[in-house]
Amino acid sequence: MTYSVSISIDAMGGALAPNCVVEAISVAQKLYKDVKFNVFGDSGVLSNLFAKYCINPSSCEIIHTTSVILDTDSPVRALRHLTDSSMRRAIESVKNGYADACISAGNTGVLFMMSRQILGTLKHIKRPVISGVFPNKKGKCVFLDMGANIEFNANSMFQSAVMGASFAKAVLGIENPKIGILNVGEEKGKGRSVESEVFDILKSSGLDFVGFVEGNDIAAGIADVVVTDGFSGNLVLKAIEGTARMILDMVKDTFKSTLLARLAAFLLRKQLRERFMQLDPNHNNGAMLIGINGIVVKSHGGANPSGFLNAIKVARSLAKDNVNSHIIEELEILESRGIGLDMLDKIKHTSAKIFGFDK
Amino acid sequence: MTYSVSISIDAMGGALAPNCVVEAISVAQKLYKDVKFNVFGDSGVLSNLFAKYCINPSSCEIIHTTSVILDTDSPVRALRHLTDSSMRRAIESVKNGYADACISAGNTGVLFMMSRQILGTLKHIKRPVISGVFPNKKGKCVFLDMGANIEFNANSMFQSAVMGASFAKAVLGIENPKIGILNVGEEKGKGRSVESEVFDILKSSGLDFVGFVEGNDIAAGIADVVVTDGFSGNLVLKAIEGTARMILDMVKDTFKSTLLARLAAFLLRKQLRERFMQLDPNHNNGAMLIGINGIVVKSHGGANPSGFLNAIKVARSLAKDNVNSHIIEELEILESRGIGLDMLDKIKHTSAKIFGFDK
Repeated sequence: MTYSVSISIDAMGGALAPNCVVEAISVAQKLYKDVKFNVFGDSGVLSNLFAKYCINPSSCEIIHTTSVILDTDSPVRALRHLTDSSMRRAIESVKNGYADACISAGNTGVLFMMSRQILGTLKHIKRPVISGVFPNKKGKCVFLDMGANIEFNANSMFQSAVMGASFAKAVLGIENPKIGILNVGEEKGKGRSVESEVFDILKSSGLDFVGFVEGNDIAAGIADVVVTDGFSGNLVLKAIEGTARMILDMVKDTFKSTLLARLAAFLLRKQLRERFMQLDPNHNNGAMLIGINGIVVKSHGGANPSGFLNAIKVARSLAKDNVNSHIIEELEILESRGIGLDMLDKIKHTSAKIFGFDK
Repeated sequence: MTYSVSISIDAMGGALAPNCVVEAISVAQKLYKDVKFNVFGDSGVLSNLFAKYCINPSSCEIIHTTSVILDTDSPVRALRHLTDSSMRRAIESVKNGYADACISAGNTGVLFMMSRQILGTLKHIKRPVISGVFPNKKGKCVFLDMGANIEFNANSMFQSAVMGASFAKAVLGIENPKIGILNVGEEKGKGRSVESEVFDILKSSGLDFVGFVEGNDIAAGIADVVVTDGFSGNLVLKAIEGTARMILDMVKDTFKSTLLARLAAFLLRKQLRERFMQLDPNHNNGAMLIGINGIVVKSHGGANPSGFLNAIKVARSLAKDNVNSHIIEELEILESRGIGLDMLDKIKHTSAKIFGFDK
């Protein structure tokens, strides 16, 4: 049997690992016959779980590792000492060509630093980012950076925009993605100096730039790619998730509150399932670390089996689409037009000077 | 007839002004017999609307003004040239003691700068903030800064925390408000340097500090007061509003989708109204500019009449509670303990040096 995609999975990362991860793999194995799974973790534990979930070993290989990276581990400790961790070995398998992509629900900071160290970055890219896909009124949008770069400047935000647009084209199939910069107002001059600088750069980039968008424009679907720094992006991402969870819980409570409500819920079960499923963070689970020279997908640490399954789906589709080749193509087009990222390095950015991040 | 509260209203500010504002006043007049309303705007237009909404002129005075501040007006232009604007005159009426509070749905930036210039700040306060009240799973929380200070340092964020706690005590009746700093992780060391500094200051302040909270903790109700800078705060505020609106629209669509769904909606109308009303941004409309030496309430620019009515309710309650006296009391207690704001001025903050925002 030959497989068209090989995916490595860190089975030990995340709050519900390894049980939840193996359960997800058992479903994925049935759905995606073209995928070979390389499952990294404690072989004793994994063998038992494979038996429990009736996993067919022909397309699922267990690769024994001796350590696990915890959420409390610092990147420094993890990079220096945890060399036989399930996360590291999964990333290394992408580096040495054994896998086309890897997935982890473990420590985000470590996954990011480790991927960067082991796999390096794509040509032209200095600061990879974590991107996510959000539901909006018109469909879906790419949101980035979700937390990789707490420090940033106009150049790194422009890189994010380019990577986000390439991702939207490759993964969401949007031909000319509309790019928006997240800001506190739509008018030029609003926000910090870095937003004004990125505005000017994007305006002259030839990309489809719709200008500044506000927090409420994300859900409204004004832009297909919404760009901000990693600090703001992470706050916004979690605020959206928290709000969605709170409201969905309220909807559920309402439908359980009386006998009549239960009847109503029964009448509406189909519509409710269809409409609300897309709001469940598990349904949109699977964030790509864009800009890394290899496909690395971050699953939410608290994802349930159906959430982790979605991350597998994302990784498979990114690998089959060969997403990084598309991103590189897009970057090369920009370079050839003289509006690429290398050129920007030569410009002195005020914000970079102010914030002291430019090196 | 004597009134216990006098409230000035900028009738010309906001997307739906002056119609929506006068409609809200017509309802408020019937609900709050103890309030005298001073309504600033074009007297010709307002007289017609007063007739349309059957407003009793005995407790509603029209004060004619000749100009209106638009959303596109810069603070500089508004402060220098629009001296007979409805917004400015409403603020001035608080300064000269004619009113106990004022409300505007107009240009936020101008309202903030103008209030600060005309009314000044409370003792010890250098950077007033815009605070809002959010619904959460446990009730309500104070969220600040919603957009006043794009530039900030640890000192100004600590001031925000103190003002937010005083506001929560005075307005929401929470005896010992739990304070959280919004960050991208709960562990110390996460986020920017400014978050770490505020963490240390709050830890030793004697206030009930619960540490860092993440975006999803806002809705979960981990803290009664959630503090961040004005840039992040504005993004998060609008992301939450946008998400809530999108989901509420989906709920409404679901209930309209089929005949059975309409029946279900009919069965559930009472529960739905009760539970979802609190999520409507109009229901939580009315943000106080805390730290200003006078009560100024900002209404959402797009608030409907019921939203503006809520802003009137907020202004009345703040005026009746004499909220600023409570805030000053709290600040004095901190000063007397040697952990107040004046002392902080003497500390050199790393972030202030990095960002160059100190003073």
